[in-house]
Amino acid sequence: MPTAYEQLTELVRDANLLHATESLLGWDQEVMMPSGGVAFRGRQLAQLARLGHEMATDRRIVELLAACEGDAALTGDRLSVPAVNVREIRRKYDRRTRLPADLVAEFAKVTSLARHEWAEARKANDFRRFEPHLTKIIELSRERAACYGWPEGGEPWDALSEDFQPGCSAAYVQRVFSPLRPRLVKLVGELMDAPGRPDDSFNHCRLPVEKQEQFVRQVAQCIGFDFSRGRLDRSTHPFCSGTHVHDVRMTTRFHEEKLLDALASTLHESGHAIYEQNLPGRDDDSLIGLPMSDSVSLSIHESQSRLWENQVGRSAAFWHWCQPMLREAFGAEAASYSARRLYEAANVVTPSLIRVEADEATYNLHIMVRFELERALLRGDMTPGDVPGAWNERYRDYLGIDVPDDAHGCLQDIHWSLGAMGYFPTYTLGNLYAAQFFEKASEYLGNLDDQIARGEFGPLREWLTKSIHSHAMRYESEALCEHVTGKPLSADPLMRHLERKLRGVYGLA
Amino acid sequence: MPTAYEQLTELVRDANLLHATESLLGWDQEVMMPSGGVAFRGRQLAQLARLGHEMATDRRIVELLAACEGDAALTGDRLSVPAVNVREIRRKYDRRTRLPADLVAEFAKVTSLARHEWAEARKANDFRRFEPHLTKIIELSRERAACYGWPEGGEPWDALSEDFQPGCSAAYVQRVFSPLRPRLVKLVGELMDAPGRPDDSFNHCRLPVEKQEQFVRQVAQCIGFDFSRGRLDRSTHPFCSGTHVHDVRMTTRFHEEKLLDALASTLHESGHAIYEQNLPGRDDDSLIGLPMSDSVSLSIHESQSRLWENQVGRSAAFWHWCQPMLREAFGAEAASYSARRLYEAANVVTPSLIRVEADEATYNLHIMVRFELERALLRGDMTPGDVPGAWNERYRDYLGIDVPDDAHGCLQDIHWSLGAMGYFPTYTLGNLYAAQFFEKASEYLGNLDDQIARGEFGPLREWLTKSIHSHAMRYESEALCEHVTGKPLSADPLMRHLERKLRGVYGLA
Repeated sequence: MPTAYEQLTELVRDANLLHATESLLGWDQEVMMPSGGVAFRGRQLAQLARLGHEMATDRRIVELLAACEGDAALTGDRLSVPAVNVREIRRKYDRRTRLPADLVAEFAKVTSLARHEWAEARKANDFRRFEPHLTKIIELSRERAACYGWPEGGEPWDALSEDFQPGCSAAYVQRVFSPLRPRLVKLVGELMDAPGRPDDSFNHCRLPVEKQEQFVRQVAQCIGFDFSRGRLDRSTHPFCSGTHVHDVRMTTRFHEEKLLDALASTLHESGHAIYEQNLPGRDDDSLIGLPMSDSVSLSIHESQSRLWENQVGRSAAFWHWCQPMLREAFGAEAASYSARRLYEAANVVTPSLIRVEADEATYNLHIMVRFELERALLRGDMTPGDVPGAWNERYRDYLGIDVPDDAHGCLQDIHWSLGAMGYFPTYTLGNLYAAQFFEKASEYLGNLDDQIARGEFGPLREWLTKSIHSHAMRYESEALCEHVTGKPLSADPLMRHLERKLRGVYGLA
Repeated sequence: MPTAYEQLTELVRDANLLHATESLLGWDQEVMMPSGGVAFRGRQLAQLARLGHEMATDRRIVELLAACEGDAALTGDRLSVPAVNVREIRRKYDRRTRLPADLVAEFAKVTSLARHEWAEARKANDFRRFEPHLTKIIELSRERAACYGWPEGGEPWDALSEDFQPGCSAAYVQRVFSPLRPRLVKLVGELMDAPGRPDDSFNHCRLPVEKQEQFVRQVAQCIGFDFSRGRLDRSTHPFCSGTHVHDVRMTTRFHEEKLLDALASTLHESGHAIYEQNLPGRDDDSLIGLPMSDSVSLSIHESQSRLWENQVGRSAAFWHWCQPMLREAFGAEAASYSARRLYEAANVVTPSLIRVEADEATYNLHIMVRFELERALLRGDMTPGDVPGAWNERYRDYLGIDVPDDAHGCLQDIHWSLGAMGYFPTYTLGNLYAAQFFEKASEYLGNLDDQIARGEFGPLREWLTKSIHSHAMRYESEALCEHVTGKPLSADPLMRHLERKLRGVYGLA
């Protein structure tokens, strides 16, 4: 007779197996599916979601959980593999079963319509068309938050952000973002006033897309993406989708004049993928589908992608290593670009309207605008009708630019229309964690810059696996940060990184 | 309240939706999956099979079936859409529930091991290693056949072949094959004794694989494969996998010296795919997942692939149309080959050892050997130990060649190791149906050869859709043949086709 823990983990693995299938169908839809398949694919995904929900809310799970939680041999050491699995299975089970079915259905209906109306509103550049849908989403989101509940002293935002970053709160985000904003605004101002500009002519260099693809595949392999356990394909929007630790699929996109974008996005997705490929299930199949082979949070996931994209991929050392490879890959077309010119082209800062096109520094200011607005909406301090004005005011204050219309302003992102509230900050938290982890790795590895300049990425990758990937969900994000770096998350490492690098690039050093 | 018929079809559509997902995962495994994913994919497929079986054997189905069967308004006209759906749902439900679970499990275990042992035995060229597994498979197959049962006057083979061709029997196959064999043997003998040989030098022409791929895609599109509702990729073994009518995926393979193989296999898979893409679900989504949007049988499916591969793709008219395209695609490399030389190269006949490499004429003799042996094994007229001797004797009698060893003889095919008994004849039945359908199409369309020579494939494709695809499972294979051609299946059309064409190619006309 299997133990309660064995039965519990078997049920959870089985539910997550179906989830992995759902994820593969999602990948296929974006990357492979012919256009005619779209309606039927929606039905397939809905069926898998329904069956997966039934399995994940099986009443036997809660009975087995109770038995496991009462077993001190299992959960006494709260950082042990079984204890973490039991704790996180409980968290997810409770969360899944806390919403009434009619609220779930209503939310799905409202966001499905809102997603469509958001796209139409953006096309028509007309926020008023989206406003009633946003109003409904905020209303239902507050209801959802009330069902989930939040800790003493918290607020509705906290309850919703739990889906993306367990244990996070608006107050925590505010505490971290507050010192960051003025320092970023000041730095960007300095750079804009600098007498010189980096040489960005490489950004206009036309390179054949086929060769670009070969090149970024080579780079992904060099930094440690394992092609025997994953794929790299093309899609409209780059993404990484981890079916499971042995089959991780990422995508990128190419444009003749945008090798740097293709490279940055490949490094970014490789960072996500390397995390997924090195979770503990890598060496122990029985963990696949359990919390002890799952990622901590979206922000820790983002820290892994941003670290490879920015700390590594936008460093002088990286371009020292990369430039000869680039010459070899593209020949005469790229031969005239020195490592320094490439490094400069990868580090241009320009306040701009669109988040997804923003540079490493200003990106975080885009996030702060969104965080402040969604928090105020959920608290009831602001109504959806106030959004365009509040948005445009902040873009003037933080980024120094005027928003010409809502399509280039508060209608640019899909997230709110999907009902994803509490998601945006994970991007900037990811940037902050990335910088803090990278500082620690440099300290630990000693000569990290030299290693990168020689194309030796193994030690960094192994340090990340040992320090972060191997812990799966053992620690919550903030606890992991303290465990790895010895300090709570702070704006200092990111600001040190940006100030040192960008002042150098802009001739202010 | 939905009617019994509405409830029934909803349950069946739901079960088949999961089956479509299973099929997509199978495609992905062959075409896209990184090697590391194999073990986990096995688990995913097993889970879907288990859930699908649960849904397809839901007790509600049998209750709803009884209600529908008793409703004359629904099933009174036995060729109406609801009547066909009810009849075929009943057939499948009964078949699924007729085997005891322990026999299903035992058969899965035995064939899983047998498949592995067959591969090892073939590698070692040692039939004795496979023999005990084949013995066990025959034993279990006879047990399965006894559970399924067969009509009065039938035999175990009939019960098993039902999976591949509902309503088929060994006696029927024997009746069709009997006149075919001596005529084929005679024709092949004539060709081998002919003074000249067709010019097959094109079969040694080396052409770049990338260009081959572009070329066969163009041909697939010309004959009517709809790329907005399907894909063509590469895989080790070409196949077509219909997830559903709006997403049909086929594969082919390429080799520098084998454009004709790549083209024939693309035409073949396109024939399967065009069938799948034009089932009635094409115009009525509510039929997807029901018998009235499913194919009749493997042999009718094969008739569609063989018709495009052989009747069209190996005709003089086709090469008249294709030759200028080939010149354009490959330039100087192909320019010296006239339509006549290409046509000859596509129609070389050579008795050979390996079924999958056989030509259009001798292929059917390979099938007869297999049919006679599996029938005798299931009747108990032969033991597995007799197989190599009986195999080799027939290859001498039918094909006039000596089998040097079992790897090139009775160990060459995977089918029996998978427990697929009653499958092989569908290939030759497909060839026979193809010829009989094509004769009828020529009669109906009048100038079919001229149309093909002009690259006008629409009329033929539409005739196939109207005559065959649109009926889905309305008629059993033989009844469909009579409905379409006005005659029972006969060896005459295939023999007329082969004799006329091949005597011409071999200068015997």
